[in-house]
Amino acid sequence: MEVKARAPGKIILSGEHAVVHGSTAVAASIDLFTHVCLRFPSQTENVDALKLHLKDVGLEFSWSIERLKEALSQVCCPFSSVPSSCTTESLKSLSSLVDEQSFPEAKIGIASGAYAFLWLYTSILGFKPATVVVTSDLPLGAGLGSSAAFCVALSAAFLSLSNSVSLDVSQKGWLTYKESELELLNKWAFEGEKIIHGKPSGIDNTVSTYGNMIQFKSGSLTRIKTTMPLKMLITNTKVGRNTKALVAGVSERTLRHPDPMTSVFNAVDSISKELSTVIQSPASDNISLTEKEEKLGELMEMNQGLLQCMGVSHASIETVLRTTLKYKLASKLTGAGGGGCVLTLLPTLLSATVVAKVVKELESSGFQCFTATIGGEGVQICFDGSS
Amino acid sequence: MEVKARAPGKIILSGEHAVVHGSTAVAASIDLFTHVCLRFPSQTENVDALKLHLKDVGLEFSWSIERLKEALSQVCCPFSSVPSSCTTESLKSLSSLVDEQSFPEAKIGIASGAYAFLWLYTSILGFKPATVVVTSDLPLGAGLGSSAAFCVALSAAFLSLSNSVSLDVSQKGWLTYKESELELLNKWAFEGEKIIHGKPSGIDNTVSTYGNMIQFKSGSLTRIKTTMPLKMLITNTKVGRNTKALVAGVSERTLRHPDPMTSVFNAVDSISKELSTVIQSPASDNISLTEKEEKLGELMEMNQGLLQCMGVSHASIETVLRTTLKYKLASKLTGAGGGGCVLTLLPTLLSATVVAKVVKELESSGFQCFTATIGGEGVQICFDGSS
Repeated sequence: MEVKARAPGKIILSGEHAVVHGSTAVAASIDLFTHVCLRFPSQTENVDALKLHLKDVGLEFSWSIERLKEALSQVCCPFSSVPSSCTTESLKSLSSLVDEQSFPEAKIGIASGAYAFLWLYTSILGFKPATVVVTSDLPLGAGLGSSAAFCVALSAAFLSLSNSVSLDVSQKGWLTYKESELELLNKWAFEGEKIIHGKPSGIDNTVSTYGNMIQFKSGSLTRIKTTMPLKMLITNTKVGRNTKALVAGVSERTLRHPDPMTSVFNAVDSISKELSTVIQSPASDNISLTEKEEKLGELMEMNQGLLQCMGVSHASIETVLRTTLKYKLASKLTGAGGGGCVLTLLPTLLSATVVAKVVKELESSGFQCFTATIGGEGVQICFDGSS
Repeated sequence: MEVKARAPGKIILSGEHAVVHGSTAVAASIDLFTHVCLRFPSQTENVDALKLHLKDVGLEFSWSIERLKEALSQVCCPFSSVPSSCTTESLKSLSSLVDEQSFPEAKIGIASGAYAFLWLYTSILGFKPATVVVTSDLPLGAGLGSSAAFCVALSAAFLSLSNSVSLDVSQKGWLTYKESELELLNKWAFEGEKIIHGKPSGIDNTVSTYGNMIQFKSGSLTRIKTTMPLKMLITNTKVGRNTKALVAGVSERTLRHPDPMTSVFNAVDSISKELSTVIQSPASDNISLTEKEEKLGELMEMNQGLLQCMGVSHASIETVLRTTLKYKLASKLTGAGGGGCVLTLLPTLLSATVVAKVVKELESSGFQCFTATIGGEGVQICFDGSS
């Protein structure tokens, strides 16, 4: 028995940082995925272990089922039909399970991913031998929601083999969960995210689960549906950021200059709302796709200026902005800033030659480029090995 | 008889562009001057001409008094004690007087300066032979108020020899006009500015006349007095701008995105008010000079982000920003943007070595740098040739 799941990454189209201060933000899925392949060994194989292979980071874990039962049967509820939170006590057991595996110092950041994996697996599927292989198109820790995609893809694969959801295993190709089941899946993924991030906003896993776009404000999420094709160049500056410090920096600036910063957050709120309106406006309206793209580009440029005003830009981000501006392409940072990733709108009529030129120039500065379609499918599952 | 006058240039500390949409702006004088030297020929010299020598652009004009009378006695009121506006008819006569001088095509932009000179001279001093030499520390057309400084310095020199003001010609060194006389001088200078610019705001000539700083909003000007020493590095990108097009661009963006742009203008208004408060706060308050400078730097950085949001930055400006940021110095464009000049705050404790390094790096990019003290004296006059 083999199942594959894939879950997309996300970008913040507008409103990062300002959202912490009550502004609207818009996030969208991208067609860069984390893939999970789960295989139950056949009885003839005589395997009695749970194996996790994180291919991109070159790490393999293996736990005997006996050891898992010993460590977790007291703290975890196997075959739980409702998502259960990992307690501090459970986390200790997970930590000891991961620590006893040979683990290179440099990859210590991966440990929390392994905790989340163990928690989700044993909670949903109990103590069953299996091999799980994970690969991803997404760079880790670059603000593209790689950890949420990991948790969503794992939850999708595990749930598909549980009794909590009903899927037609005979169907070919990528399948989508039912709406009601997606809600359950999203909650499980959120439990995984909590293990990895402590206090995640829930935006990343929601975008990865449902796909398309999400507008969020003061903790409430609204799913929105784009009516236009949207392509972005995503440039990873590879500059590591301290998200907490950046968020704190904006809050401190807000304390020092409350009046201007309040207006700045209001401006961002208006930009997110306008962007959301443009994206949802029916194609039949008297506004061409090119005009819509021009509006979006201008809104992105404006949002970037406001992010600079908040003090979260970075020399590497400015380099990307300058490079893309030479080709008259609008860009903005996405996520926490201070490095991380930059979005560049790729208009429909832009020639592939120009895109190739921009990418070449950005890569020669040491950056990593991805071309992504925005607002596509959320998590999907496949039983027949055809994908 | 010889008189010298000098009038300072200006910078916009905050609020450019937004001021057009009702926000507060703050302008200040800089210790870069336009110098005017006026000499009446002695009777033995037997000179019967009015000569204007614009040293920086290498242009010399000479009009016979007879020709001036012929062209202007019908349209101009010589020895006028109240500032008189130049009518369209008068402008035609001025234009013919300037056109008949040999005038290189490339320097055609200077013509309006010669019109203003002729208008101010003949209106204030009538048809008297004289030689006027003008030099300036200020780059032309870079947004540092060179034309206003020209008109203010000319008005100061001319008025000092008229019956409209009373000055003690026996005093040594630079003299300042009385408050009531400065008002008259400022009005004359404004008439000159109108000839050069059509519809000037009156800010440049007011700053050049009174010096120090001016807060302005919706056409009303308030003089403010700084209590702190303030030094700026002024970098002229030498990129020519079309101020009208830039102003129109912001207005168009405002029409397209009224909600966010209104918030952006509100943010700028708050920044200008806060900057004005910091600058005027008494030194005895519980805030050190370094803290004040840090506040100003942060407000400048925020204002720059908002200007980028309005779309008036330029690659050359970004280059200056990046260079100064490497030295942790806060910068913003000043004036119309799209090129022009960039301000960089030079904190009191910054070593001269660092300033020299920054200047060297900026100059190696082809920019022109000035170090200026902000908020000094306005127009001054000197009779004894000691300055």
